Amino acid sequence: MAVYTEVSQEDLAIFLGQYDIGRALSYKGIAEGVENSNYLLQTDKGRYILTLYEKRVEVKDLPFFLGFMDHLAQKNLKCPVPVHARDGVALKRLSGRPAAIISFLDGMCINRPNEKHCEQVGFNLARLHMAGRDYTGVRANNLGPDQWRPLFDQCAARADEVTPGLKQIIAEELDYLTQNWPGGLSQGIIHADLFPDNVFFIDDMCSGLIDFYFACNDALAYDLAICINAWCFERSGEFNATKARKLTQGYMSQNPLPGKDIEALPNLCRGASLRFLLTRLYDWLNQVDGALVKPKNPNEYLERLRFHQKASSSASYGLS
Amino acid sequence: MAVYTEVSQEDLAIFLGQYDIGRALSYKGIAEGVENSNYLLQTDKGRYILTLYEKRVEVKDLPFFLGFMDHLAQKNLKCPVPVHARDGVALKRLSGRPAAIISFLDGMCINRPNEKHCEQVGFNLARLHMAGRDYTGVRANNLGPDQWRPLFDQCAARADEVTPGLKQIIAEELDYLTQNWPGGLSQGIIHADLFPDNVFFIDDMCSGLIDFYFACNDALAYDLAICINAWCFERSGEFNATKARKLTQGYMSQNPLPGKDIEALPNLCRGASLRFLLTRLYDWLNQVDGALVKPKNPNEYLERLRFHQKASSSASYGLS
Repeated sequence: MAVYTEVSQEDLAIFLGQYDIGRALSYKGIAEGVENSNYLLQTDKGRYILTLYEKRVEVKDLPFFLGFMDHLAQKNLKCPVPVHARDGVALKRLSGRPAAIISFLDGMCINRPNEKHCEQVGFNLARLHMAGRDYTGVRANNLGPDQWRPLFDQCAARADEVTPGLKQIIAEELDYLTQNWPGGLSQGIIHADLFPDNVFFIDDMCSGLIDFYFACNDALAYDLAICINAWCFERSGEFNATKARKLTQGYMSQNPLPGKDIEALPNLCRGASLRFLLTRLYDWLNQVDGALVKPKNPNEYLERLRFHQKASSSASYGLS
Repeated sequence: MAVYTEVSQEDLAIFLGQYDIGRALSYKGIAEGVENSNYLLQTDKGRYILTLYEKRVEVKDLPFFLGFMDHLAQKNLKCPVPVHARDGVALKRLSGRPAAIISFLDGMCINRPNEKHCEQVGFNLARLHMAGRDYTGVRANNLGPDQWRPLFDQCAARADEVTPGLKQIIAEELDYLTQNWPGGLSQGIIHADLFPDNVFFIDDMCSGLIDFYFACNDALAYDLAICINAWCFERSGEFNATKARKLTQGYMSQNPLPGKDIEALPNLCRGASLRFLLTRLYDWLNQVDGALVKPKNPNEYLERLRFHQKASSSASYGLS
């Protein structure tokens, strides 16, 4: 939950004067998104999300993200669309922060996704990749393989506080992935954070994808690997092979990836586990007193990493 | 900001099955109300607030509060109205907590109230008191004068940690108020917490009052004293006599109080200052690690108390 920046009614009224979306009838800080402050804004013309970008988001990346959302909406992908002010600009400032108004998307996150939800996630991830093909924006993945070692260096000394032996496990995995990280895969714009928090459903149908603030250029199959990590493990820690098959086949039904991408999946899944293990470890070791967001336990991703280390081929994920 | 209890989409769907308000299209935890978890719920029939009552609210009091809101709505006071399930019951359970669905009220809180806002607060407070006259529910004020000394006893030893000399100041004020607390005043149901957080405006017009979870039977003029404390001091700490005049006269234009009530105002204002000074002091000294709500500085109310101690008559508040 997160409202880091308070917006006064007076400042909001002036801000809305730049747009053609009517006057505010209400706005409520909402517990959504861990990186930014979000308000659900009701005007006499409709419902919107007002986002104030906080310090963890690089201001220079915002045109890439907002432009990508514009692009996806033009391709009829179900996602929030930035509202442009009368001067054509979507990125403004409010209460001292960069800010944007985004269209409101109906739908709810699923706490306990079933196989059908997983299939839809795969399907919609593929549609996202396809829609992104001709987006001209470029943004490097600032949480990609090159960044894992520097991130580890900042955590290594205290990693064993979380789990004895963790430092050694990560060091070995980093060495393995450095030597075996797949190259030459199909590239595109990936979501890079398509967790259950970021997929809306109404009944069992996906109503849209949100939170494009990690989107970047990277291997498409790596995005699939992130989704496998995020959607196909039970709360008990157990891998659900049926969910993985539904997810990967949902993807392939729309955007069939070449054999090389598919073969790379076990290593990509290891990498995705390591990426979330490392960022969670960092956040766990660097908890801010009085922070609004409780850091998540890194060990969940250690367990997932161990599963992927044992996966012999992409058949483990329902692909052949 | 406060979402203490997470509600899954699955549990919500079952819960909504008891009502005739359609199916959920979205629900967002909102940063409103410090005592309870609140969700802004959108169904295909409308917008609602879903409230889960947390531990600080006494479950036995909930029928009083919800009944009072029902009663006020019947009198056409602008306030949220509990939605009754098909069985006629407004108070249900969800995710292990007592829960209710309340109608959504348009409007926004004002950060920097002006004289016009203050006049409207007085006007609407009076309307609230008038509408409450024939409400048959009864609830004692559990933060009234009788509770101040026990509250102080829990804080006294550490009061000077907040401000040197505070223990002595409060002890003397308690003695003074015990001897001079006015009796025989007009009684009724008071809001008891009508702070700027709890009054919605659209443009400069009051669109409604919210948060009736401190409502109780007490002196009507004490409610006016709470509002004077809450609305008529500037951020600098200075008392704004014009705002107080507008507020009290806005009140009197609707519900003229007898002379005895008016004469009691300086002591009632001292009592209201002390009440918020004590509860803030208690919360300040008993901060919970990782709490979502940052306690407010008690000293604000020490300054207000000092102002009221010097007020010679109700003329200080614009009444004669």
